[in-house]
Amino acid sequence: MQFTAKELAKIIDGTIIGNPETVISGFSKIEAALPNTLCFVGSPKYTKYIMTSQAAIIIICKDLVPKEPVDNITLIAVDDAHQAFVELMRIYTELTTPKEPVGISEHAVVDDKAVIGENCYIGATTVIMQNVVIGKQNKIHPQVYIGNNVKIGDNNVIYPGVKIYDNCKIGNNCIIHAGTIIGTDGFGFTQENGISIKVPQLGNVVIGNDIEIGANCTIDKATLGSTIIHDGVKLDNLIHIAHNCEICDNTLITSLTGIAGSTVIGKNCMIGGQVGIIDHIAIGNNVRIVAQSGIMHDVKDNATIMGAPAFNFSDYMRSYACFRNLPQKLKQLENETKNSK
Amino acid sequence: MQFTAKELAKIIDGTIIGNPETVISGFSKIEAALPNTLCFVGSPKYTKYIMTSQAAIIIICKDLVPKEPVDNITLIAVDDAHQAFVELMRIYTELTTPKEPVGISEHAVVDDKAVIGENCYIGATTVIMQNVVIGKQNKIHPQVYIGNNVKIGDNNVIYPGVKIYDNCKIGNNCIIHAGTIIGTDGFGFTQENGISIKVPQLGNVVIGNDIEIGANCTIDKATLGSTIIHDGVKLDNLIHIAHNCEICDNTLITSLTGIAGSTVIGKNCMIGGQVGIIDHIAIGNNVRIVAQSGIMHDVKDNATIMGAPAFNFSDYMRSYACFRNLPQKLKQLENETKNSK
Amino acid sequence: MQFTAKELAKIIDGTIIGNPETVISGFSKIEAALPNTLCFVGSPKYTKYIMTSQAAIIIICKDLVPKEPVDNITLIAVDDAHQAFVELMRIYTELTTPKEPVGISEHAVVDDKAVIGENCYIGATTVIMQNVVIGKQNKIHPQVYIGNNVKIGDNNVIYPGVKIYDNCKIGNNCIIHAGTIIGTDGFGFTQENGISIKVPQLGNVVIGNDIEIGANCTIDKATLGSTIIHDGVKLDNLIHIAHNCEICDNTLITSLTGIAGSTVIGKNCMIGGQVGIIDHIAIGNNVRIVAQSGIMHDVKDNATIMGAPAFNFSDYMRSYACFRNLPQKLKQLENETKNSK
Repeated sequence: MQFTAKELAKIIDGTIIGNPETVISGFSKIEAALPNTLCFVGSPKYTKYIMTSQAAIIIICKDLVPKEPVDNITLIAVDDAHQAFVELMRIYTELTTPKEPVGISEHAVVDDKAVIGENCYIGATTVIMQNVVIGKQNKIHPQVYIGNNVKIGDNNVIYPGVKIYDNCKIGNNCIIHAGTIIGTDGFGFTQENGISIKVPQLGNVVIGNDIEIGANCTIDKATLGSTIIHDGVKLDNLIHIAHNCEICDNTLITSLTGIAGSTVIGKNCMIGGQVGIIDHIAIGNNVRIVAQSGIMHDVKDNATIMGAPAFNFSDYMRSYACFRNLPQKLKQLENETKNSK
Repeated sequence: MQFTAKELAKIIDGTIIGNPETVISGFSKIEAALPNTLCFVGSPKYTKYIMTSQAAIIIICKDLVPKEPVDNITLIAVDDAHQAFVELMRIYTELTTPKEPVGISEHAVVDDKAVIGENCYIGATTVIMQNVVIGKQNKIHPQVYIGNNVKIGDNNVIYPGVKIYDNCKIGNNCIIHAGTIIGTDGFGFTQENGISIKVPQLGNVVIGNDIEIGANCTIDKATLGSTIIHDGVKLDNLIHIAHNCEICDNTLITSLTGIAGSTVIGKNCMIGGQVGIIDHIAIGNNVRIVAQSGIMHDVKDNATIMGAPAFNFSDYMRSYACFRNLPQKLKQLENETKNSK
Repeated sequence: MQFTAKELAKIIDGTIIGNPETVISGFSKIEAALPNTLCFVGSPKYTKYIMTSQAAIIIICKDLVPKEPVDNITLIAVDDAHQAFVELMRIYTELTTPKEPVGISEHAVVDDKAVIGENCYIGATTVIMQNVVIGKQNKIHPQVYIGNNVKIGDNNVIYPGVKIYDNCKIGNNCIIHAGTIIGTDGFGFTQENGISIKVPQLGNVVIGNDIEIGANCTIDKATLGSTIIHDGVKLDNLIHIAHNCEICDNTLITSLTGIAGSTVIGKNCMIGGQVGIIDHIAIGNNVRIVAQSGIMHDVKDNATIMGAPAFNFSDYMRSYACFRNLPQKLKQLENETKNSK
């Protein structure tokens, strides 16, 4: 599929500098541009690639347009080159993605008492248990397991190998990547005579709308009630969310982070990779947590924190600068003290 | 399924304060109690919810019973409200869990040379290879893979998508959650001329009795002999146990922890999340390791440790308190030294 | 299968001390040697086990041979006992491993437009989508998913439950362990009015030759272009490699490590467990990173680093020694300052 500069400029409301009939048939990065592709330049540190680029068309921020014309390359100037580029990638993906097969594979194993909505794709060897209700236009890839009484809304994509335990609920427009497990038993035991006795886990997991969950994550069901992932949350890969947690709207969590039981994370937080958060605490809204931090207490709205145990980011960096320099600094103080005697 | 206060009080040996004919049909949390449910109050910080609760029956510790009667709520007073509540959840779960289908699904793929005991459930698209021996009353959910020569005892529950490599052994009464991999090759290489040559991994994994393993864990087989998980061990999600490790009885390990090759963990330890333990060391019995610690040396019985590298917990917290305060403290010492000259 | 000391000594070019007709039928560890097995002693700390060992034959480094003869045990002296032992394990494994079934299981689901080379094994309930091209002598175990347009070379082993997304490529002689996900969408979003909008992920993952990837890893596809794993790389379990990363030849990465987007790791690096590496940086060649370190800046060739944020290993250990001793040291400096007034 090909697009002309004129067609692209119209979509993103840009100004063409060069030949409006220039054609592209794919996308590439400006620092490794391939012939006949579209690139973008959104920051001054990439302008050096423009002159030598093999790209056919470059989308560029207005204020970065070179004063000299560029041979063999057509520029399209816009306010925000990155945003315009992402918009075009989105349209291109929609137009060029081969339509997934529709319908229930003859190799899927669907219980008679399951209800499946219109225009769904159910892949080969996917297993759907009793009393499952699935809405419209879901793509459920092969090798997925959907337990008894699970409810799934509309327009979700569930990739191969996802396992959803009994009684969990998923909203609309979610993407769940391969290997993720939803609704496993929480890690709950009582100690009796030195032996761990399992606390029954009777709850479920409720996943809202517009959520993306990466690959090989694990989200435990609640002991009672629900572990809740609210609308717009995005989880990276290999994340662990324990029983009875609640992750509020639009929070982003990076890979290998673990959140212990009954903790509530506020809205619009950004949590780095390999962060650990203990159980039964509350993280406010708009909180930023640096990768590898360990959180052992409630965190207020708008805080940026780091360290294990974590505290204010700037304070941590100042303490850490002292830590790096400790052997020299302590030696120096010791010498000065001696000299002053 | 419904229970009266009289029935419940009899099971947990409690004293009814209110109407013995009050009926419940489920469980909820006191801080979010639903109508017609049973809750519990086991600590003074939850007594404030009693007056406004919609619960029908509340199990409460004897010493927390309010002096005034409570309208519309029946109390059952016991010594340990939490333990009594868990006991009732356990009984309720047993009575109300729909019986899993029994028998081998027509969509399972079971080798002719596999032996499967009485009253087992083998789910759809589960694959069982040659010479497997499976005991009685196992629930093996869909999409499980059981490799050649695997031996499984009685009364185990293996959730969807678990993969067990050739020659591994599992005892009785274990629960293995979805996506967990047992018996993968250890990470063993020798270096020859700058290239990593694979050391063959000839051993297996032996899982004892009464063990629960969370979702998406990985347990490597031994190079020679066995990686051993002893009776009563409980593993959370996303845990990595390397080749030739041994985890002794009743130890609990929280999510995202990794244990490197040939390390032995003692009995009754509690290991926090995201802990890393290096290879070829021995952790004693009753050891507690704080989340995110890094263990680089043997640890004695009964120690509580923290940090990376880890040392005594209280000492770590004292050092960390100094760390937080370092910029101010060093400044202060510097000024005092100058002033004293 | 049995081997005599004479046969073994010939293969590894060793000198027999004892009975050349002694027979072994398996391998064990010197510290837990079983009857009729072969062990090795490669370091002085294991020589104490020789006298009491039940092993039949022990391979031993020339300089560790005891002066007294050992009853009932035949020694084979070589330059490098460990290397010789591994070589024999490799040969033994090849000779004794039961031949995997060859051919496509009748329970596999292979698209008509997929091309599969000679002597491949495709296990039960494995799903192979459209336009897949698979070379010769691949062992693709049960329950694997291979997405549209995937290309796989020769002699690979893909264990149960691996999922490979559309358009990814795998070279020759690779081993991919159970539950690993290759080609999941990168974690890329733009923020618009407080909502995270997905950046389409159009690239793929390219896996080279002679690579081993552990269980339950996740490797994201590139936004544009390819996430690349180069020849000879070995990844342990539960590792996350983000979109657009590049891991160069023969680098080893231990479990639970996460590498963020677009970062390039050089050749022959050794990266410990639970390491976190931020996005868009470059790690040089021959770099060693201690477990649990956090890398926030480019790292030069041949560096050994530790800490979060990481710096030179020896400097870190010196600073950490001061940290452990901080409360006492600060107290002492304070007292000395006061005394000197």
